[in-house]
Amino acid sequence: MSDEVTTPAPEHAEKKEHKKQKKEKPAEEPVLMQKLVSLAKRRGLIFQSSEIYGGLKSAYDYGPLGVELKRNIKNLWWRTMVHEREDIVGIDASIIMHPKVWEASGHVAGFTDPLVDCMDCKSRFRADHAPMGDGGKIKCPNCGSQKLGEVRKFNLMFKTNLGPVEDSSATVFLRPETAQAMFVNFLNVQQSYRLKPPFGIAQQGKSFRNEITVEHFTFRSCEFEQMEMEYFVPPPEFADEGKKPLDYYAYWKAERLRWYTETLGIRAEKLRLREHAKDELAHYANGCADVEYEYPWGWGELEGIASRGNFDLTQHSTHSGKKLTYFDVDKKAHYLPHVIEPAAGADRTLLAVLIDAYDEEPPPPEAKGDNAEPRVLLHLDPRVAPIKVAVFPLIKKEGMPERARDIIRTFWKNGVNAFYDEKDAVGRRYRRQDEVGTPFCITVDGDTAKDDTVTLRYRDDMKQERIKIADALSLVAEKVRVGGRDVRLNR
Amino acid sequence: MSDEVTTPAPEHAEKKEHKKQKKEKPAEEPVLMQKLVSLAKRRGLIFQSSEIYGGLKSAYDYGPLGVELKRNIKNLWWRTMVHEREDIVGIDASIIMHPKVWEASGHVAGFTDPLVDCMDCKSRFRADHAPMGDGGKIKCPNCGSQKLGEVRKFNLMFKTNLGPVEDSSATVFLRPETAQAMFVNFLNVQQSYRLKPPFGIAQQGKSFRNEITVEHFTFRSCEFEQMEMEYFVPPPEFADEGKKPLDYYAYWKAERLRWYTETLGIRAEKLRLREHAKDELAHYANGCADVEYEYPWGWGELEGIASRGNFDLTQHSTHSGKKLTYFDVDKKAHYLPHVIEPAAGADRTLLAVLIDAYDEEPPPPEAKGDNAEPRVLLHLDPRVAPIKVAVFPLIKKEGMPERARDIIRTFWKNGVNAFYDEKDAVGRRYRRQDEVGTPFCITVDGDTAKDDTVTLRYRDDMKQERIKIADALSLVAEKVRVGGRDVRLNR
Repeated sequence: MSDEVTTPAPEHAEKKEHKKQKKEKPAEEPVLMQKLVSLAKRRGLIFQSSEIYGGLKSAYDYGPLGVELKRNIKNLWWRTMVHEREDIVGIDASIIMHPKVWEASGHVAGFTDPLVDCMDCKSRFRADHAPMGDGGKIKCPNCGSQKLGEVRKFNLMFKTNLGPVEDSSATVFLRPETAQAMFVNFLNVQQSYRLKPPFGIAQQGKSFRNEITVEHFTFRSCEFEQMEMEYFVPPPEFADEGKKPLDYYAYWKAERLRWYTETLGIRAEKLRLREHAKDELAHYANGCADVEYEYPWGWGELEGIASRGNFDLTQHSTHSGKKLTYFDVDKKAHYLPHVIEPAAGADRTLLAVLIDAYDEEPPPPEAKGDNAEPRVLLHLDPRVAPIKVAVFPLIKKEGMPERARDIIRTFWKNGVNAFYDEKDAVGRRYRRQDEVGTPFCITVDGDTAKDDTVTLRYRDDMKQERIKIADALSLVAEKVRVGGRDVRLNR
Repeated sequence: MSDEVTTPAPEHAEKKEHKKQKKEKPAEEPVLMQKLVSLAKRRGLIFQSSEIYGGLKSAYDYGPLGVELKRNIKNLWWRTMVHEREDIVGIDASIIMHPKVWEASGHVAGFTDPLVDCMDCKSRFRADHAPMGDGGKIKCPNCGSQKLGEVRKFNLMFKTNLGPVEDSSATVFLRPETAQAMFVNFLNVQQSYRLKPPFGIAQQGKSFRNEITVEHFTFRSCEFEQMEMEYFVPPPEFADEGKKPLDYYAYWKAERLRWYTETLGIRAEKLRLREHAKDELAHYANGCADVEYEYPWGWGELEGIASRGNFDLTQHSTHSGKKLTYFDVDKKAHYLPHVIEPAAGADRTLLAVLIDAYDEEPPPPEAKGDNAEPRVLLHLDPRVAPIKVAVFPLIKKEGMPERARDIIRTFWKNGVNAFYDEKDAVGRRYRRQDEVGTPFCITVDGDTAKDDTVTLRYRDDMKQERIKIADALSLVAEKVRVGGRDVRLNR
């Protein structure tokens, strides 16, 4: 099946799987992944879902810090893709859509995995992932038997029933992607917002795929969050030179790659754009490329950018019987726009951000106590970091807690997520913040009451400076607003 | 069944239904609702889901302006409940949880509606909503027959299958509420974040209920968004005076009611707190109250605040076999905290905000042209409004569009959602912004290039003032930050 983030089409999906089969799956996650999974649980970033009941297959819950990280990533995407552009608007559609949507999109017929039953051990597995046995025929990955049933197609959409009658007329699906809602709402959005191609419709939200193979922590799971945008452009015959669909395709590839470095702060050398080969493309597509990140287990997709022609609007027009053309007043022509689709996965982006930020520093030779431990830290961009600034009273008396809380309230008032901590020695508090990527710590001490100064400490180089409270407030607020790599001095 | 926003328990649910039965359902929505539904579609606030396929029962999609309104409401809730407090943290859990969660919570056994089949016309209906016929027995609401089947319980949870085998072992449910994730994650969150009761865990997200009766536009539907918080407090025997569970219950009732007026800007006279009668309470609950809004069809629930004892943690501890107690170092005691739950519905809150903001002003007697039409406007609080400020060039030349876009970019850089419009006369542009609740409009004209001034126009009283660009920027940014009713001069 297709990768998580690209709007799939049957042919496309099967071709992509072919490629994936060649990869060897490691028996165990790399050490860095193991450390990260452990940190994620210990510090409240990501928990296994329903853990007290033994967990649920590949389902994860974001904890107190994970939810903030995810909100930041989603908000930065929304800001870049919707708020800071005149040509793109958002929607938020229901997860359960009319079942005909999935007939038109091709998902009912073609969004399948090939499954086989083993006659001997009764296990069920994916034919396209099974090992080869004698005579080049597949064998059971569990018992090695070649007594197998016929290969059957298993649809990856979750089915449920709407209404109290459990018959087929009420069968509905959990959306396997958010993209179809943009196509189905194309005219409603275009008309209510008076939009003229090129324009885009963006959406974030949960999608569901009944994956047989789930892998790499939150990288591939059955329930996941997408950030998709459909960009509707005039078809080639009505487009000016330099504004053809393939020009916008090139534009969006560059824009989206740039977002991961400039906005999320992921290192450029860990990212690449991989153009799909002709035989990987769906029949209607004239281009598709993945933004890939070099995960500890190899390169993996963060986002797919596809040039989809007018396939989707054509399908929905045919299946609904509704005219979905746009009337271009200047060109005096009705046409179906073509579509460029940048489709990103929020969960795997978050995972890449964590992996990319993870660092361990050996202690200096002369270090003692807590400082003799290796320092674990996340080099998160201030815009992405769950906590922007931690404020500590040096001790729990002499008015220091009150003063620290005053500072925190000022941050809150300005929309900066600030965290109060008074437990343990300040050195340990610094370490706790390093581990979750808090870029700044402020300590209130005995001098604060005298001269309105505090100690501002930077995460990456542990530099400390004495600074007026007002200056600390504006410095932190500005870094959180503009972000950037300048607090990442140690990379 | 229980209302949308309160964590239901079987007994609770059935008792509440009893009360609802007494209400007469109007045959048609009130005129104000009809106007609002029309405005919502026309201006891209809310569309019927899958409309080109004839729509889907009670499912709605938020359009370009609706999604911004919803994001604002959800973000304001998050800010009030999580970011601006030391004692509450957030989570974001998966929608599909382990099926045992719903056995422990009581939903598998008791989250049901009573359904009956008519033997004559074959229709299926809710026994508790059916009219009475001869002999005090219920009759078919469709054909009036009293030849009815047995009353059967229909579970309101959506069922689906996880994995490729469609047998009962793989049956999972779409969560009917977000609250259970907070109970199941109680220890993980408490330990990873080093929290000490009283503390809260908050979550926003989609929930699903297979409702037979859906009503009043987005007020009750099968897919909806919740904003829930579970506040864990020491049980009475370990609580200091004034900090007993019922004290926190009182605190949260007042806090939550206040939020709707002070943060969302809903008129206080349209809100009330309705304490449940003893016979409406679940057996374990020692208090429950609804924040209600006076909708055009009558009072309806926005949020439920419930004092739930330790019922939920007890249930999950029993069913999982895991100890879910907290160890209180000061009191040297292990205990199960009690829970106060403020549970709000995002969709019905949004609907209340729209209804409350809707206004029509008759034109002044001497008005001409566009101004002779009644003025439709939404008196939205600047924090809630989808668009904060619209910026217009008076005409499309002499550098005015460029200057207007400069201003817009400055707003964007400061996180203020600004909208550019150059179509039609300025008067019509004002009207379009009034209709979607944009509190401020700025017009760039011929003098702007000379003296850096613009016209700032207020939505509510249509007052205009000539102002320096820099002052307009800071005035708007400040109003959007602090909100408040001072732009609602006409109410």
